[in-house]
Amino acid sequence: MNLAQKLGYAEDAKLLIIHADDAGLSHSENQATIQALQNGSMNSYSIMMPCPWSYEMCLFAKNNPQFDGGVHLTLTCEWETYKFGPVLPVSEVPSLVDENGHFYRKRLDFKNNAKPDEVKKELIAQVEKAIHLGVQPTHLDAHMYSIGVTPEFFNIYKEVGKIFNLPVFITKEFLEEVRLSDEEYDFEDIVVADKIIIGNFADFEKGEFINHYEKALDNIKPGFNICLLHPAFDEFEMQGITINHPNFGAEWRQLDFDYFTSEACKLKLQENNIQLITWRDIKEIK
Amino acid sequence: MNLAQKLGYAEDAKLLIIHADDAGLSHSENQATIQALQNGSMNSYSIMMPCPWSYEMCLFAKNNPQFDGGVHLTLTCEWETYKFGPVLPVSEVPSLVDENGHFYRKRLDFKNNAKPDEVKKELIAQVEKAIHLGVQPTHLDAHMYSIGVTPEFFNIYKEVGKIFNLPVFITKEFLEEVRLSDEEYDFEDIVVADKIIIGNFADFEKGEFINHYEKALDNIKPGFNICLLHPAFDEFEMQGITINHPNFGAEWRQLDFDYFTSEACKLKLQENNIQLITWRDIKEIK
Repeated sequence: MNLAQKLGYAEDAKLLIIHADDAGLSHSENQATIQALQNGSMNSYSIMMPCPWSYEMCLFAKNNPQFDGGVHLTLTCEWETYKFGPVLPVSEVPSLVDENGHFYRKRLDFKNNAKPDEVKKELIAQVEKAIHLGVQPTHLDAHMYSIGVTPEFFNIYKEVGKIFNLPVFITKEFLEEVRLSDEEYDFEDIVVADKIIIGNFADFEKGEFINHYEKALDNIKPGFNICLLHPAFDEFEMQGITINHPNFGAEWRQLDFDYFTSEACKLKLQENNIQLITWRDIKEIK
Repeated sequence: MNLAQKLGYAEDAKLLIIHADDAGLSHSENQATIQALQNGSMNSYSIMMPCPWSYEMCLFAKNNPQFDGGVHLTLTCEWETYKFGPVLPVSEVPSLVDENGHFYRKRLDFKNNAKPDEVKKELIAQVEKAIHLGVQPTHLDAHMYSIGVTPEFFNIYKEVGKIFNLPVFITKEFLEEVRLSDEEYDFEDIVVADKIIIGNFADFEKGEFINHYEKALDNIKPGFNICLLHPAFDEFEMQGITINHPNFGAEWRQLDFDYFTSEACKLKLQENNIQLITWRDIKEIK
C-alpha cells in the first residue's frame, strides 16, 4: 500500500500538505500564519524555537491543538541584522555559533564547524522547549534544510524524530540542493515527500510568483506533495528582518499569504482534486 | 561647583539629556531612535542587550560613535507575548527567570527571587556583550528602574558603573516610585539627576500627551534634567509587542518620536534656553 492508500485515499490520489515554515520568526510571520490557518488553505505549520517570537506562536499552538503544528528545527540564521542562536547555552554548543553566539548564516559554515553531539542535543532541546511551552508537535522539519548537508547530520535529524515519535520532513529534492557531501543518504523506513512546491525567485523577479504556484497546483502529480510557504506581511518588521534579501523577503512572504488565503487558491485545489492531508495523519499511520 | 559649572555653563543653567530608552527592543524602536538622533532633538540612547534587535542597534552604535549611547541594563520584561531573558545561560542565573527562562514581568517578582551575585554577573555580561559587539558605552541606565527595588541591588548597579568607569543614571524620583524596601539608599559620590521628564499616562488618555512635554520644557528648572523617551513607530510589530499595554504602548511611542523630531520641540528648547548635555560630558568630568 502506498501512503495514499494507508490514509484511505485512492492509490493515485494527489496528496498535499500546505505548510507554513518559519512561525516564531516574527510577529508578522506569526499573525500571517495564524490568519492563513484560520481563513486560508494552509493546514500545517512549524515553529522556530530559537526565534524571538516563538513564545507567541507556542501560546497559539497550545490553545489551538486542532491545527497541525511542528517544530522547525533551526541551526542557521540567514539574516543580516536580525540574529538568533541556540536555545541551549552557547557554552554547551559552541560549535554551532559564530563569535557573537549567533547561528551561522551559511550551511557551509554550519557543516564545517558543527559537532554532531552538539547538533543532537540542540535539536532535542528545541523540541523539548516547544513541549514545555505546551505545544504537542505533530512533526519535525528543518530550517533552510541545513540538517541535510551531510548524511551524518541527516541521520541525527531522523534519530530525533524517533526519540519523539514524530514524522520528519524528508525530501530528496532539497537534499540534492543542500548536500555538501558525496556520501550516500539512507532513506530506509521513512516517509519521503515526492514533490516540493515552493516559491521561485526567478518567477518572483519576473512578477510571475503566483503563476508559479497556480501552474504547480495544476500540474500536481499523484503522491505525497508538500507546499512550503513563508506567510508574513510586507510591513516594517519583515522588511527589516529580510533587508538585502529579496529571496524569501517581505514582499515574497506577503504574496505567499495573499495567494494561499485567496478564493482562487481554494478553487484551484478543488479543480485539481487535491487531497489536503496533515503531518498528524502521517504520524497516525506510521 | 555644581554640575553645570563643571561642564562650563552658568551655575543656574538648565541642563537636559534627551534620552531614548529601549533601543534594541524591536526594529521599530531602533529605527525610530536612529531617526530621532539624526534628525530630532534626542541626543542620547541606551541599548537593551537581552532583546532580539540589540544586534542591529549595536551595529549602529559601532558605526556611529558620535552619538551618546549606553547600556539599558535589563532585568525585567513587561510584555505579554514578546519575551526575553538573560544574556547569560539560564543555568548560571536561575534566580532571574521564570519557569520559561524569561525575565519576570514585575519588579516585585524580581525582588523576591533574584540573587545579588546573579544580578551582578548578568549586568556585567550585558555590558561586556555590548562592548564585544563594538559599542563604546557612554553610560548605564536601568530598564523599568528594576535595579532600584532595594538598596542592595542599587549598590550593585553603582558598582557595575565603577567596574566599567561609566556614569549611571540615578534618580531619587524613580527610586521613590519603584522601591520595595524601607532601607536607606546611599547617594554618596555620584551624580544624581534632579528632575525626570517622562510621558504621563493620565495625560496620554486625555489626549494631552504632547502638552505634558511642552509644559515640562516650559517649566524646566536649573539643574540636571533628563527626558526619558521611548521612540518607536505605531506599526504592526510595536502593536504586537505592547499588546494590552497602552501605557508605553505603540501609540505613546509614536508620539514620543513625533514630538521630539518636531520643529516645535526644537523651538521650545531654544525659547527656554535649555542646554543639551550628554552622558559623555558627565563621564569626562567625573
